[in-house]
Amino acid sequence: MKRESREMADALRIGIVGASGYVGGELLRILINHPNVKVTLATSKQYKDEVIYRVHPNLRSFTDLKFSEPNIDALTSNCDFVFTAVPHGSAVKIVPQLLKTGLKIVDMSADYRLKDAKAYEHWYKFTHPQADLLETTVFGVPEIYGVQIKASKFVANPGCMAITSILALAPFVKAGLLDLEHIIVDSKIGSSGGGTKPTLATHHAERYGVVRPYKPVDHRHTAEIEQEMSRLAGREVKVSMTPHAINMVRGILCTIHTFTNSKLDTPVVWKTLREFYRDAPFVRFVKDKKGISRYPDPKILSGSNFCDIGFETDERMNRLLLLSATDNLMKGAAGNGVQCMNLMLGLDERAGLSFPGLHPV
Amino acid sequence: MKRESREMADALRIGIVGASGYVGGELLRILINHPNVKVTLATSKQYKDEVIYRVHPNLRSFTDLKFSEPNIDALTSNCDFVFTAVPHGSAVKIVPQLLKTGLKIVDMSADYRLKDAKAYEHWYKFTHPQADLLETTVFGVPEIYGVQIKASKFVANPGCMAITSILALAPFVKAGLLDLEHIIVDSKIGSSGGGTKPTLATHHAERYGVVRPYKPVDHRHTAEIEQEMSRLAGREVKVSMTPHAINMVRGILCTIHTFTNSKLDTPVVWKTLREFYRDAPFVRFVKDKKGISRYPDPKILSGSNFCDIGFETDERMNRLLLLSATDNLMKGAAGNGVQCMNLMLGLDERAGLSFPGLHPV
Amino acid sequence: MKRESREMADALRIGIVGASGYVGGELLRILINHPNVKVTLATSKQYKDEVIYRVHPNLRSFTDLKFSEPNIDALTSNCDFVFTAVPHGSAVKIVPQLLKTGLKIVDMSADYRLKDAKAYEHWYKFTHPQADLLETTVFGVPEIYGVQIKASKFVANPGCMAITSILALAPFVKAGLLDLEHIIVDSKIGSSGGGTKPTLATHHAERYGVVRPYKPVDHRHTAEIEQEMSRLAGREVKVSMTPHAINMVRGILCTIHTFTNSKLDTPVVWKTLREFYRDAPFVRFVKDKKGISRYPDPKILSGSNFCDIGFETDERMNRLLLLSATDNLMKGAAGNGVQCMNLMLGLDERAGLSFPGLHPV
Amino acid sequence: MKRESREMADALRIGIVGASGYVGGELLRILINHPNVKVTLATSKQYKDEVIYRVHPNLRSFTDLKFSEPNIDALTSNCDFVFTAVPHGSAVKIVPQLLKTGLKIVDMSADYRLKDAKAYEHWYKFTHPQADLLETTVFGVPEIYGVQIKASKFVANPGCMAITSILALAPFVKAGLLDLEHIIVDSKIGSSGGGTKPTLATHHAERYGVVRPYKPVDHRHTAEIEQEMSRLAGREVKVSMTPHAINMVRGILCTIHTFTNSKLDTPVVWKTLREFYRDAPFVRFVKDKKGISRYPDPKILSGSNFCDIGFETDERMNRLLLLSATDNLMKGAAGNGVQCMNLMLGLDERAGLSFPGLHPV
Repeated sequence: MKRESREMADALRIGIVGASGYVGGELLRILINHPNVKVTLATSKQYKDEVIYRVHPNLRSFTDLKFSEPNIDALTSNCDFVFTAVPHGSAVKIVPQLLKTGLKIVDMSADYRLKDAKAYEHWYKFTHPQADLLETTVFGVPEIYGVQIKASKFVANPGCMAITSILALAPFVKAGLLDLEHIIVDSKIGSSGGGTKPTLATHHAERYGVVRPYKPVDHRHTAEIEQEMSRLAGREVKVSMTPHAINMVRGILCTIHTFTNSKLDTPVVWKTLREFYRDAPFVRFVKDKKGISRYPDPKILSGSNFCDIGFETDERMNRLLLLSATDNLMKGAAGNGVQCMNLMLGLDERAGLSFPGLHPV
Repeated sequence: MKRESREMADALRIGIVGASGYVGGELLRILINHPNVKVTLATSKQYKDEVIYRVHPNLRSFTDLKFSEPNIDALTSNCDFVFTAVPHGSAVKIVPQLLKTGLKIVDMSADYRLKDAKAYEHWYKFTHPQADLLETTVFGVPEIYGVQIKASKFVANPGCMAITSILALAPFVKAGLLDLEHIIVDSKIGSSGGGTKPTLATHHAERYGVVRPYKPVDHRHTAEIEQEMSRLAGREVKVSMTPHAINMVRGILCTIHTFTNSKLDTPVVWKTLREFYRDAPFVRFVKDKKGISRYPDPKILSGSNFCDIGFETDERMNRLLLLSATDNLMKGAAGNGVQCMNLMLGLDERAGLSFPGLHPV
Repeated sequence: MKRESREMADALRIGIVGASGYVGGELLRILINHPNVKVTLATSKQYKDEVIYRVHPNLRSFTDLKFSEPNIDALTSNCDFVFTAVPHGSAVKIVPQLLKTGLKIVDMSADYRLKDAKAYEHWYKFTHPQADLLETTVFGVPEIYGVQIKASKFVANPGCMAITSILALAPFVKAGLLDLEHIIVDSKIGSSGGGTKPTLATHHAERYGVVRPYKPVDHRHTAEIEQEMSRLAGREVKVSMTPHAINMVRGILCTIHTFTNSKLDTPVVWKTLREFYRDAPFVRFVKDKKGISRYPDPKILSGSNFCDIGFETDERMNRLLLLSATDNLMKGAAGNGVQCMNLMLGLDERAGLSFPGLHPV
Repeated sequence: MKRESREMADALRIGIVGASGYVGGELLRILINHPNVKVTLATSKQYKDEVIYRVHPNLRSFTDLKFSEPNIDALTSNCDFVFTAVPHGSAVKIVPQLLKTGLKIVDMSADYRLKDAKAYEHWYKFTHPQADLLETTVFGVPEIYGVQIKASKFVANPGCMAITSILALAPFVKAGLLDLEHIIVDSKIGSSGGGTKPTLATHHAERYGVVRPYKPVDHRHTAEIEQEMSRLAGREVKVSMTPHAINMVRGILCTIHTFTNSKLDTPVVWKTLREFYRDAPFVRFVKDKKGISRYPDPKILSGSNFCDIGFETDERMNRLLLLSATDNLMKGAAGNGVQCMNLMLGLDERAGLSFPGLHPV
């Protein structure tokens, strides 16, 4: 199954810093089958010198690569492009050095998602050391910042619940259709969103079957949603966000309760969505009157890079219910990161990403 | 294990009409171990003459009772009290007859929950044939209508998501603390809430792992919540409700996003809850700063009759986030029905119900 | 809900050493509602001074007890009976001291299950310091050693997969019906069987959905099964045992493939089972030709103390397929421990244990 | 995302008869991204004229194809190759007609798996109308019959549990290492293996969390295993097989307990496996001493075409424990079918199948 035989002489060389986490593993899964690139370095302090498939067992037979210790020189000489998939607070320590060498980078952490250094103090209790870099970093939503991403050397990949919410809200906030005082994001997420570190809260016997609100107020992804909605609205927008851990591993559903100032017709909603996402290969609209899959559902997105968006209008309440679903490791993380990489490298936006999810699973 | 040896000579005789569904099965489970009553009749058209444990396999060795066909005479002569657990639309056909015989009844269906016959036309597309009876029926929330239930011969048991929402909202609506224009109930429910009928939507391969909104607008339980909130507020209150089917069998979490007109202090919230639920044995408050169970979670309620209520205040948004959890078959259905029965029969409200949920499960 | 009002003046006082684990939590759940006893001490080094419901959240409102540090004097003066539910290897350090004070004890650990000190060296790589005590300890299977348990001051509670297997095999091994060279126990178990300690192997994202063999050869519970089968057969019996972790929290199914020397008729199997379990309130036979619950299944046993046993004869192979199911925390641990306690204290064997499992769940 | 733009002028045209089931859906998922073929016809009586993504929602945006009614003429004129994925008993009605037209076929049903028409009477209570065709049909295990499949026009795809068992057993039976009187296959399977038809047994509330033996004696897949093992052994071999439905959607683990006549060294086992599977791109060996994935586990195979094989030697019992895992819809059905198709069409055996499973999921 190894692709040694394949002619990859001109493949671009990719490094992944922090490749032993779930996002790192998903980057590896995608890039191993990507037609234009090859992974040359995968770093992990914890698993240094370990074969990759011992940590990511699904990749057995696909690569003989071993994890190496992160090293700027090795990255510089072996890679054309780097993903930094390190914990929040660690990216700021390596990204500037890597950028200096001319490497293009997508950072998967939260360290560069917010434009305003002060916001890091509020949401992350963290004094950001590189306010200048924040200003020039592109926020990696290809459906909104595609042009900028293509021209950029450094992109900050959004948070999983942030991008899932932003993609549902953006068309309507931009169109000025919503009551901006009452935007409620009620999200449901699987356990892979919490990373690889075992705790009592993630212990199977404790985590299985839960419907557990976590950070139900002041969740950090709120900051990204507010930043983008404020930009689209041209005024400050605040959002009420409450995530829940539920009994699945992959997937996010954002149920977004919004209200409209005037009566909203379904055709207007459709038109708003269609115009906004005219050229977005990974946004699909899901709203059906037949069958059992009438609304977006992460169940059918496992392993795929789509954000499915649906809606329902509630005339009684002037409520516009938005529903958006992603695989949190794909469009919510690694898949979107590769989509950004494709744009930054001048490749087809869809390269290595054009496969459906599994059903049933 | 059969309790034949036990002296139950003076036990009250209970009939269950529609005993082969999940609510019927849960009534049987509770009543088989209830200290003051015994089940004498359990009816089921579909499973006539079948032993009960073939349908409710957990009850094997606890009863030799067989399902019988529903029959007014048999119910009248063999029972002191009847639960009607038939499909919506069927209860109206038998309740009036049974009431005439002097039997006390708790109806588990939706047929008598709404006071206003017109509401049935709107929410159920159903012309209710007994508007008079609706007016005198007591809505079975013991924490609100305990006095009336004690004095009543006929109680309508609330919908599972309705009672779970009502118990969280009631104290705050009564206290006048909420912006009544923006009450959003986002609920998550297990598959047992949908009953026993297999369909493609409930097929394990299709239903497992979903986060599937269903009736995300105009769900019928909305009507009950609005009826009760309107009564408590003294004005019409509308509610935005969106349920989601998630990957569990038992349990409901209602995440209720409310907004306050003024800044709300946590002590005021506590005081409002404590005063409202001073004597409510099955309401518990769950809000912790340590451990992994900081908010209500149906996971720990399996098989128990509690409604756990918690909250969080979101100062940025003037949001009061209410969280309430139940086992949908217990406090959301059969357990609450037995609690009503206890009150109607002059028994200890807690009789047969004072056991904790399972953990872990 | 607290039972303070209840007259428990003459209740026997129970201590639980190691009460913060899942077995300790289940002992608490049972004993809190037991009609003849009350828990006076619950120890935990890790959670000293913590309220119990923070660790066992299902017990909120049922007890105000706090965990205390284990202390021989406190146990001696406050308890009539003690459960030791400490890790394997720790019980040997406290049991002898407690026994000296005259306390009756059920030990939930593996430390006293094997009669032969040498067996501990083989299976546990552990030099047992109390070979004498091993000889006089009663192995806590009430269905086999009921008389001895009643007369005993010290009982070793069996391993969860051991008792589930033993109860299925014992009648047939005793009756001399099986080919003793080919007994294969293939068991499937939920995550609660692994205890409370979080590891990568128990991390929800890793543990969810697995069918993971663990210790597929030489699992320690094999030793208990072999010990008991050898005793019943009057010769050395070895058993092939392979457990699998599967995607549930509670429950064990043991699929036991056995072979018979001669053709075996179904009536003989039934007779063998019925005679062996003539007076066993917690053993049920499950073998049906209708319905969907034709064989034992742990799904319907959650929270209950039954061992369900079923079988199928495979004429082509001379195979007698035995199937046995338990809730691993109940009949597989705490429930069986309380059943032993009941016998040791002269109470009704069923006291505090006569409730069915949940269905559906 | 649609591949209209792609140059597929010379793509081979594939028809799928019975495309609305789970195997049909998985064939579509694979073939939509296959580099050498395109699906031109997908038939379904039940869903005639329905767009495919309403039944297989994961395929939304990947195809605009609608289900058509099965029709020999349409298949003949629009297809170069056909998969028949109809219920058992239906394939015999269409395969002969299709073969006459010169179409190459892989039949996914059970109708042609057994060589011996009499075996159909025993295992399927079915008088097979085409004994001649049975003799010339190739049994579709590429790892055993690769040469024959390449040369064949008609291949019968094996049953999911059959192929998973056969791949583990074949090397050892062929090498003459096993006690052929005691081969026990204890398998665990997800709900997708049971097809799309909802019943009470597959109702989520009833099916979730089960460990439910089904057809624990005389399961039909036994016949295929025995057929192949008998051929490899050169004598009649019988197998004891017991499947269990467990709480997952995709995946099979076969735990195969075998016994050896003489002491078996681990290096011999390795050598036997390696020699048998020298050129098998979809068989991987999984046996590790580190990490949490030491044995085959279907968890990591979701969506992939591998059969992972592992083992453990049990010296005490002379037991050779074999473990094999597949995704039942992939290597257990559609994936293996496409692998056969690739061989029959002279394509790279791995075409369209060389992607890893998901982890975590």
